[in-house]
This record gives sequence, C-alpha cells and structure tokens, in this order.
Amino acid sequence: MGLMSESLTQILIPLAALIGIGFALLQWFLVSKVRVSGGSELDSEYNDKLIEEDGQEEGIDSDVVVAKCAEIQKAISEGATSFLFTEYKYLGIFMVVFGAIIFLFLGSVKSFSTESEPCTFNKENICKPALANAFFTTIAFLLGGLTSALSGFLGMKIATYANARTTLEARKSIGKAFITAFRSGAVMGFLLAANGLLVLYVSINLFKLYYGDDWEGLYESITGYGLGGSSMALFGRVGGGIYTKAADVGADLVGKVERNIPEDDPRNPAVIADNVGDNVGDIAGMGSDLFGSYAESSCAALFVASISSFGSSHDYSAMSYPLIISSMGIVVCLITTLFATNMFEIKKVTEIEPSLKRQLLISTILMTVGIAFVSFFTLPSEFTIFDFGSDKVVKNWHLFFCVSIGLWAGLVIGYTTEYYTSSAYSPVQDVADSCRTGAATNVIFGLALGYKSVIIPIFAIAASIYVSFSLAAMYGIAVAALGMLSTIATGLAIDAYGPISDNAGGIAEMAGMNHSIRERTDALDAAGNTTAAIGKGFAIGSAALVSLALFGAYVSRTGIKTVDVLAPKVFIGLIVGAMLPYWFSAMTMKSVGSAALKMVEEVRRQFNTIPGLMEGTAKPDYATCVKISTDASLKEMIPPGALVMLTPLIAGTFFGVETLAGLLAGSLVSGVQVAISASNTGGAWDNAKKYIEAGATEHARTLGPKGSDAHKAAVIGDTVGDPLKDTSGPSLNILIKLMAVESLVFAPFFATHGGLLFKLL
Amino acid sequence: MGLMSESLTQILIPLAALIGIGFALLQWFLVSKVRVSGGSELDSEYNDKLIEEDGQEEGIDSDVVVAKCAEIQKAISEGATSFLFTEYKYLGIFMVVFGAIIFLFLGSVKSFSTESEPCTFNKENICKPALANAFFTTIAFLLGGLTSALSGFLGMKIATYANARTTLEARKSIGKAFITAFRSGAVMGFLLAANGLLVLYVSINLFKLYYGDDWEGLYESITGYGLGGSSMALFGRVGGGIYTKAADVGADLVGKVERNIPEDDPRNPAVIADNVGDNVGDIAGMGSDLFGSYAESSCAALFVASISSFGSSHDYSAMSYPLIISSMGIVVCLITTLFATNMFEIKKVTEIEPSLKRQLLISTILMTVGIAFVSFFTLPSEFTIFDFGSDKVVKNWHLFFCVSIGLWAGLVIGYTTEYYTSSAYSPVQDVADSCRTGAATNVIFGLALGYKSVIIPIFAIAASIYVSFSLAAMYGIAVAALGMLSTIATGLAIDAYGPISDNAGGIAEMAGMNHSIRERTDALDAAGNTTAAIGKGFAIGSAALVSLALFGAYVSRTGIKTVDVLAPKVFIGLIVGAMLPYWFSAMTMKSVGSAALKMVEEVRRQFNTIPGLMEGTAKPDYATCVKISTDASLKEMIPPGALVMLTPLIAGTFFGVETLAGLLAGSLVSGVQVAISASNTGGAWDNAKKYIEAGATEHARTLGPKGSDAHKAAVIGDTVGDPLKDTSGPSLNILIKLMAVESLVFAPFFATHGGLLFKLL
Repeated sequence: MGLMSESLTQILIPLAALIGIGFALLQWFLVSKVRVSGGSELDSEYNDKLIEEDGQEEGIDSDVVVAKCAEIQKAISEGATSFLFTEYKYLGIFMVVFGAIIFLFLGSVKSFSTESEPCTFNKENICKPALANAFFTTIAFLLGGLTSALSGFLGMKIATYANARTTLEARKSIGKAFITAFRSGAVMGFLLAANGLLVLYVSINLFKLYYGDDWEGLYESITGYGLGGSSMALFGRVGGGIYTKAADVGADLVGKVERNIPEDDPRNPAVIADNVGDNVGDIAGMGSDLFGSYAESSCAALFVASISSFGSSHDYSAMSYPLIISSMGIVVCLITTLFATNMFEIKKVTEIEPSLKRQLLISTILMTVGIAFVSFFTLPSEFTIFDFGSDKVVKNWHLFFCVSIGLWAGLVIGYTTEYYTSSAYSPVQDVADSCRTGAATNVIFGLALGYKSVIIPIFAIAASIYVSFSLAAMYGIAVAALGMLSTIATGLAIDAYGPISDNAGGIAEMAGMNHSIRERTDALDAAGNTTAAIGKGFAIGSAALVSLALFGAYVSRTGIKTVDVLAPKVFIGLIVGAMLPYWFSAMTMKSVGSAALKMVEEVRRQFNTIPGLMEGTAKPDYATCVKISTDASLKEMIPPGALVMLTPLIAGTFFGVETLAGLLAGSLVSGVQVAISASNTGGAWDNAKKYIEAGATEHARTLGPKGSDAHKAAVIGDTVGDPLKDTSGPSLNILIKLMAVESLVFAPFFATHGGLLFKLL
Repeated sequence: MGLMSESLTQILIPLAALIGIGFALLQWFLVSKVRVSGGSELDSEYNDKLIEEDGQEEGIDSDVVVAKCAEIQKAISEGATSFLFTEYKYLGIFMVVFGAIIFLFLGSVKSFSTESEPCTFNKENICKPALANAFFTTIAFLLGGLTSALSGFLGMKIATYANARTTLEARKSIGKAFITAFRSGAVMGFLLAANGLLVLYVSINLFKLYYGDDWEGLYESITGYGLGGSSMALFGRVGGGIYTKAADVGADLVGKVERNIPEDDPRNPAVIADNVGDNVGDIAGMGSDLFGSYAESSCAALFVASISSFGSSHDYSAMSYPLIISSMGIVVCLITTLFATNMFEIKKVTEIEPSLKRQLLISTILMTVGIAFVSFFTLPSEFTIFDFGSDKVVKNWHLFFCVSIGLWAGLVIGYTTEYYTSSAYSPVQDVADSCRTGAATNVIFGLALGYKSVIIPIFAIAASIYVSFSLAAMYGIAVAALGMLSTIATGLAIDAYGPISDNAGGIAEMAGMNHSIRERTDALDAAGNTTAAIGKGFAIGSAALVSLALFGAYVSRTGIKTVDVLAPKVFIGLIVGAMLPYWFSAMTMKSVGSAALKMVEEVRRQFNTIPGLMEGTAKPDYATCVKISTDASLKEMIPPGALVMLTPLIAGTFFGVETLAGLLAGSLVSGVQVAISASNTGGAWDNAKKYIEAGATEHARTLGPKGSDAHKAAVIGDTVGDPLKDTSGPSLNILIKLMAVESLVFAPFFATHGGLLFKLL
C-alpha cells in the first residue's frame, strides 16, 4: 500500500476539482470587471485608468464604440448559442440511439442474463452480470456526452463573453488586452479540467454503490464515459470545424479577394458567421476534444489498473493514481497561471509569444515535481501491472518516469509546433518568402513544411511510448497520456486565448475602431495562431498515446495474445486503417469546400443585390449566412461521423477482433501524421500571411504591404490551410481515439459474437 | 512435379524474352519510318499520304518546320543524354561504395570464413559459405543497378526519338500521331520487360554454375538484383523528378503566369529543360521504377520458393514459375498491342482514352487465361510453401488465384485512377468547377479528391493481400505482385505514351506549328496525363504487394516468429515508419520548390536582360536553365536518397530486427496512401486545367477560355500538383520497396549483429 490513506484520497480529489472551479470563477469575475454596457460608470472607470496609461488609448470615452462592441458581441454570442443548441439537439438524438445500441450489443454478450458470473480476468472472483455492465456503460456514455457538451458550451460562453472585452481593453494597452484574453482562456481551461475530474470522480463513487467489490465491472463500465465524451467531441469538432471554415473561406474569397475589403469588415455578410464559427469550432470543439482525451486516458488507465494488482488488492489510493495526477495538474496550472497574470506584464508585442511559451515551460517543470510527489505518496513501492496475460512487476518510480516522459514529450511537441508555425522562425519566413513567386510555390512550401514538422513530434511520441511501454506496459502508456494532459488547464488557456483574440480583432474592425487597435489585436491573434497550433499538437500527441492505451486495453479485453502484422487478417486491417484518415479528410475538406461555395454565392448575391452595401449605407443580411453555415455543418457532419462510428462496429462484427486490432493500429500510426502535418501547414500559412501584413521586419516589408502580389498569394495559402488546420486536422485525433475507445467498449461483444464473415467462409 | 520439363522451361523463358526484344525492335523500326531529316524523300512520302488524308494536314510540305522539329528534338535528346550520363556517373560511384558495404556487412556475418556451413532453413544440407553469398549478392546488386540504368536510358532514347515524329504525324491526323506515340511507348515497354527477364534468367543460370545444389544460397544472393534495380530507380525517380519539376514549375511561373506566353513557347528560356525533364523524369525514372518492382517481386518469390518444397525437391520448372509468368506476360502484351496498332484506328479525340483503357482490359483478360495455363502446366498439383517456420500445403489452382487477383486488382486500381484523374468524369470536373471561386478552392477540392481516390485502391490491395496471403502465405503475395506486373509491357507502353505526347506538344509549339496541331497533341497529352496516373497507380499497387512479400521474406530470413504490434520495439518502428513518407516528401517537395525558385530567377533575369527576347527576335540561353536543373537535381537527390538507404541500416544495426520489421510495415501502410493521393491529386489538377483550356463541353466553356480567372486558378493547382505527382508521389513507392529489399539483403547481418542499442541498455 502507498502512504496516502483512502480517506485522504477521497478528500483531495474533489477538493482539487473545487479549487479549480473556484479559480475559474475568480478569473471570470476579473474579466467581468471590464464593462461593455456603456454609460457613466464606464466613463469613470476609464477616467481612472487614464491617469495610469501611457497615452496610447484612443476613443475610449466614446460610448458609441462601446455600444457597438456590445451589440456585435451579442450577435456573435446569440449565433453561437443558437448553433450549439441546434447541434446538441441532434446530438441528443444520436446519444440516445447510440446509447441504445451500446445497451443492446453489450447486453447480448450473455444473452441479457441477470445472473452474476465469474470475472473475466480474476476468474476466482464473482462479478456482476454483463447486463449490469451494459446498463452502467450506457449511463457512463450519456454522462460523458453530457459533460463534453457542457464543456464545449461553457467554453463558448466564456469566449463570447470575453471577446468584446478584449477589444475594449486593447484600446488601453496591449498588455491589458492580453491579460483579458488570457484570463478568459484560463476560465475555460480550469472549468474543463476541474469539471471533467469531478464528474468522473462522482460517477465512480456512485457506480461503486452498486458494484461494490467488483472493480473489474466498475471500471469496464466507466470506459463508456470516455466514449460519450469523444463521440460528442467528434461531432463538435467536425460540425464546428465545417461551420467556422465555410464561413471563413466564404467571407475571405469574396471580401478579401474579390471586393478588396479588409478581413472582418462589417459590410461582409459572412462576417458574423465567421466570428460565430471561431467560437463553435475552435473553442467549443477544442474543449470537447481535449475533455475527451482526458476522459479516455483516465478510463484507459483505470481499466488497466482494475485488472492489475491495485484492483485485485483493492488499493483505492493507488487505483486513483490517474485522478490524483489530474488533481495535482490543476494545482500546478493554478500556480503557473499566476505567473502570467500577476508576475510579468506584457508591454510589447514581441513579449506575447515568449510569455505564452513560458507558461508551458513553467507548468511542465512544476508538474514534474508534482508527479514525483504523487508517485511516491500514493503508490506502493512495488506492484504488478496486467501485461497481455502476464503480470509485470513495476516500481513506483517507474510510473514517475512514465508520466513525466509524456509530460515532457508534450513540451517538445509544443515547442516544435511553435518553431514551425510562428513567424519568428525561418520555416514560416521561408513560406512567406515563397509567396514572391506566387500562390503555387507558397502551397508547395507550406505542404513541405507540414510534412517536415511531423518528424520531431513522432520521435517524441515514439520515445515516450518505448519508455512507458517498457516500464509499465499499457498502463504506462495511459499514464504517459495523462502526463501530457496533466497541464491541460494551461494548455487550454493558451489555446482558447487564440480564437478570443481573433474575435477581438473582428469586433474592433466591425465596430470601426482605429487602425492601431486592430494592429494590437492582430498581434495578439498571430501569437494565438501559434498557440492554437500548439494546442492542436498537444491534442494530437495525447490522442496518439491515449489511443495506444485504449488499443492495449481493447486487446486485453478481447483476450488476443498477439497482434501479428504477418497475419493476413491483421494486415488488411492495418492498411485499411491507415487509409481511414484520408477518407475522413476527403469528406471533411470537400464539405468545407462545398459549404464555402454556397457561402460565396450568397455573399456575392448580397453584394450585387443590396444597394449601398459596399458604400456602407446599407446593412448586409447576416442571418442568411449564419443559416448557410449552420445547415451545411449539421448536414455535412453526418457522413464523416458515421464513418468513424460505424467502422469499428462493422470491422469488429464482420471481420473480428484481430482485423479491428490491425485497423486501430493502422489508423493510429497514419492519422497522427496527417493530423500534425495538416495543423501545422495551416498554422504556418496563416502566420506567413500575418507576417507579410504586419511588415515587422525588413524582409517582411519587401513582400508586403497588404494587397501586394505576394500578399495575395499568401491569402490563398491561408484559405487552403483553413480546412486543414481547423476541420480535418483536429478531427483526426478524435477519429483515432474514438475508434479505439469504441472498440474497447464493444470489446465484450466482439469477443463473443465478432468475425461473422470469417466464421461463414 | 508439374507437367513441364526442365529443358522446355530452359528454352521457353529466353525465347519469350527474345520475342519481346524482337517485337520492340519491330515497333522501333515502324516509328523510324517517320523521317525528321527533311529533304525530297520526305516530300514524296507526304505526297503519297496526301491522297489518303481527309484534308486536315497543313504545312506538311514545309521543310523548314521539319528541320526545326529535328533541331529541337536534337536539343532535347542531347540534354537528356548528357543529364543521364552525369547522373549515372555519380550513381556509378554510389553503386561501387554501396556494393562494398554489402560485401563487408554480409561477409562479416560469419567473420569472412570460407568454410561451407549447414543451411539456414534445411539444416541437414550443407550450403556455400556466407562469404560467397556476400560476393554474389554484391555482383547481383551491380547487375541489377546496371540493368535498371540501361532500362531508363533506353526508354529515354526511344522517347526522345519519338517525340518529334509524333509532332510531325500530328500534322496528318490524330490517329497517326497516336499510333506513333503508342508504338514508341511499346518499344520501351517490351524492351524493359524482356531485358529484365533475360538478365535475371542469365544471372540465375550463371550463379548456378557455382552454387550447384545450394538453391537457398543462390536465390538469397539473387535478391541483390532487386536491391540494385531499386537503388538506381530511387535516384532516377528523385533526381529526374526534381529535374523535370524544377524546370516545369519555373517555366510556368514566369512564362504562363507573369509573361502570359503559352506553355512551351520557344521564347521561354526554361522550355528545353522542361522537355528534357519529361524524358529523364517521367520516362527514365518510371522505367527504372517498374523494372525495380519487377525484379524485386521476382526475387521475393524466388527466395521464398527456394526454401519451400520447390527448392528442397529441386523442381526447376515449378521454381521458375515467377519467370514463366513474366514470359507469358510478354506474349500476352504482344497480342494486346496488336489490338491497338492493327485492329482499331483512332479517328477522334474522344477515342484515345477508351482505346488505352481497352488495352488494359484486353491484356488482363488474356493474361488470366495465360496464368491458368502456366499454373496447370508448370506446377505440381500440390506442394508446400514456407510459412514463417511451418509448411503450408498449397494446390496449383491456389496460385492461379493468387496471381489473378493481383492482376485484377491492378485493373481495378487502373480504372479507379482513370475515374479520378480523367476530365471525362465528375471528380475532375468538380475540381475544374471549383476554380470559379479561385485557386484556394481549387487546391482544397484537389487535395480532397486525392484523399478520396485512395479508398478503392486500398480495398483492392487489401483484398488481394488477404486472398493471396491466406492461400499461399507470402509466396502468394509475391506472385500476386507479379500478376499485377505481368502486363508491365502494356502498362509501360501506355504510360510512356504520356510524356512522349507531352513532348510532341512542346515541339509543335516551339516549331511554331499551327494552332490546330497543338490542339491535337494537347488531346493526346490529356489522355497521357490519365495514363501516366494509371501507370503510377500500377507502380504503387505493385510496390505495396512487392514490399509486403519482401517484408515476409525478410521476417523469414531473420527468424522472427511474430511481428507483434504490441511489443514496444515493434510499435515505435511502426509509428516512425509511418512518418518516413512525410519526411521524404518534405525533402523532395522543398527541393523542387527551391530549385524552381532558382529557375524563376534565371528566367526572369533572361527576360529582363536579353533585348528582343519577348519579341522573338533574340534567342534565350537554354543551356543555363538546363544547368540549373541538372545541378539542383544532382545535389538535392542526395538527402532523400540517403534517408531511404540509411534508415534500414540504422534501424537494423542499432534497434534490431523487430524495430526494423515495424518500420517496414509502418512505411508500407502509410506510404501507399501518400503516394496514391499525391499522384492522383496532381493528375486531376493537370487535367482540370486542360479541361478548361480545351473547352470541349458547355460547362468547360463557362470556365474558360485560357487566361480567364478560373483558368489562372487552375494553372496554380496544376503547378502545385507537379511536384506531388512527378516527384514525391512516385518516389514513395520506391521508398517502401527499397527499404524492404534492403532489409532482406542485409537480414543475415541484422540477425547476427543487429540491435546494438538495446543490447547495450
């Protein structure tokens, strides 16, 4: 037994979650102090500030501007809320239907018998009936889906609450705007991390009331939580991704390219849809996604632990190791956040990116200490871990290394992503330079950059897999994934910061604010592109580890002894699995393309038919564009969603557990590459364009200014990158982990009834 | 024993090879009847023809035009010859160095002992010393390299001999031009197929003089032939690919985009380099590539057969089954070719593509009969095949199915490729339509098309793998690959037809021929883009099967029992292997981009500094552009080449045979996807552009004409596609098979000395 008692564990986990929620609320309160309601109170606040400021502020006493900001914010918030409600309505139906499928499939494993059975792994014990597992898996699935939807929704609410406030603060100084955007990101990060932990903790304790000593059944059911979380995340990412990019591409193609009006110009009918998109795609989608990864890696670790010595000896604290790691993560991120909000102040544009990077470094260093602490206090010095049929002896410091290598691999991925997507380094500058010879070379260089950016992350992932797998089998992989995600609150904070800044810039433009305000928000946004790419890097890296852990758990649950590449059943799974990311990307990119074409036609129609629109005397019809994006995304998210949800079911039912195992391995190793390259290519193109626009260096000025041929070429690259980085790329990590968790949940069914086709032949 | 005697086999194989060579020479002779020397003899020939013609011919009595064509052809031929000589000079050094490495590594397996040893697989027999295997492997390696170089060189010679002739025939009719281009392609196809078979046959018989009854050692050494062939192919493809696309992209960016002059305009300084590139990249590279696949699949099949019952019972005819299949293929393709050259006549542009497609279908149907014939006459009705340590009982009709499914999978891949890259179907038309909204949507739709085009080929490959693997283990895979390649002569003929037509168009433009001639060659070329894509599809599909067969042979040779994905050593190999195609593509695309930038600068410089160039009164300096392409390709082919050649050596030596096995599987399943999508995307963009230019349908005319915004967008897509379809994509299939064959050749070394790093830890 470890040093920490069960009762202490029972107190500390919910306590950490509550601290996280409290901290999030505090940050929210601080953001809310920026008023967007207008009126005298506001003026007096501004007057107070005036004395402290360095004279850069402008127009801050104008109630008109503030009222306009408030109005735009309201429109964005309402658009996003209404879209999410519609989306969740459809997804609600899906959840109920798929919940029923889970119940029926799993219930059928023992023909809906209500008799208790010998356990699968500890055959001498008696476990609850398979029907109970079917029921509780379904409940967990629904709970996971609900938490995921809540995470996405809350994130969106905060983001749409913060965007206008960031714009208004940008009038005062870059530092104040940064803090507002960053605090809002932190609200989301902490709420999600804490909420995820709390729901999981509460569910386990409630399920325990029924399961009692049957931990095997308990933690098998809990895997439904991960499946629910990721199912919602899939549709959130895909739907949101199509929404945001259809609007973005459509708005850019007519506005920037044809009409030569700036980005986010209020005359562009698609501009509101574009800004709504940032919130439903990048924010809500990302929130659901990372929550899903977190839920799945916890579930994978818990499942493996339950069939290892922690489970059989009923060591509650050691069993809760994954949750305690996450609790420690919340505390570490809290301290880290204070560094950004209270210890340093951003005074110059060039300080933004280093400051966000520093957050990653600080949290990683602190968390390493935290992991050591947790590993030595909660784990026995020696224990055994289930390793595909045999028991592997593991020491507590082995797990310290497993979690830490995941954590540090995350940092390596983050830093590599930054190197390849930030305009401060040569890769993006080379891409920008290639715009000199036009859009074609820009696209060629961008694609090459994306391919190249895969190398180091893959080595980092491979190294963490080798170390953690060798030390503690697939439990090691699961906790390595948790290690990478342990600083999720910080990761999400800097990630959400991006779209908030992007929106802030949009609002500044629409509210007709001075050019210098827009420059400040653009600077925030450029750093945001990089941090968004970093966030995606984390999401993909952790998804790779999570999927492998789930894959391991799936293989254990189905009782396969080896997944031999040289068995024909496995190999065909492997090669078809490697193809799935391409099929999926083809669908999502085509969807964005088609939806964007519709949007283009509508925007053109409005420009052509609404008199006075270009002159700014008439208002465009924003609502139709919002509707086009909404309809397109809801309709188009079904085929890719179905591909991901149905493939494991079809492969498992008809081709059996071995082909499915190959399929999971194939989609994992191939999907990771496609996802990383797509995200980084898109991020690099976006920042290459911003690099030319900002004209901050001698080199950049030779390419610019806005409207130059090189800039036009850069805009084309940026547009191509949009669906890659915000639709296909980030959805792919959900593809690989969702297929893995789904296979795990349905493993009892496949093991009993799977492989119909080969049985027939 | 089968029905065919050893002496009959000994006669039939070389006979088929000689028939193939004879037929190629006959086709060459027929092509040579088109004179490009000018003079009275020519005039009289034209006058003869005039009577038969339908009055479309024009300018055919102009000696000036003919002389100009001859001059241009000479320039292209000299450029290509000089490049290939330079390239082969460097590759000669490489072959010698790498040959020495092979000898040293393999010699060290038994410490350079000259004593005979018990055999690896049939332990009761005595085999020749490892040192002899090292020596003969090195010899086979050099022979393979030489044959590959010869194949590429001959292909290039024929193509540069045929291009101007095709142009001249295009003045008469589309049908005559088609026949000339097609016959020339056939020369290449038959020479390569027959030459490859002959050299392999002769080598085996010569090696047998030393090896005698030690078939295990004999066929192990012969694998060096495949390695030599593919090593040369790799550098040929990469070097040639960079050469051709640097020139093409560079010429287009300045010529078409900036200066608004047509493609292949003689005023463009890069135009000769561009046309030379088609011959050294598409023709010589492709020739080496397919020869490599053929050599490797034969070697893989022979190696496995030698350790199966054919080898232990010394059944020569059954042992030669792979070679007899190829012999039958030559005969079948000969009959097939007669259908195109003698039975149908092309009268309209729309007949070209169906006619080429029909070639594929006819050869596949005839070959199926041929396979049945060969299988029943050369194989015993029942025999055993080595299956990872055990013996699998196989019947002769099992092998019929294995070879046939490979053959038909090739047809499926070919037809799918045609569907996705021909402007006759909706995918390319959709891509063309997306040009309406600019280059960005064009690129998005094109990428999505490429991703989507992967689905059916992968299912076809998976099905053939499953069937042939289940029926006859990895011997089945090897002969399935041979089945796909059995119609290589026809495949190469329709593939080589593409670049020849492309060149013909270039010559028409440069010689200042009438617009209608150019339209005819353009029509030939559009079909050529599709057939080139089909050829690449075959190359990739067969490469996938070949690599798997080689992989199986490698695993057998190293004595690994399973390649378990769930072993950490294997999994890290798998994920890193899946990354390699990206790394490789990043290098090659960046190389093309950088070389193109240099080319652009040179072309711009010439336009700006040579007075009268735009007006056509002064000649550009073609030689400098040729030099830029040459230097760039020779320099830039080294890093990607080193990546491919060194990775197996490093992985095997330091990480051991299991990690290398994972690496091979990973690069195989990932590389196939990248290669297919890259080739098809590029082909689709090219034909979308041609579709708009040709304006053959109502829809196409709404997008055109040349110079319209939609057309400009299409040109950008085409330019992006160039390095994808002609550099990265096709090189990737060499990557996967070369790494596999290299691993097989070095397997004895890795099995003895490999895995240093893990041994140290």
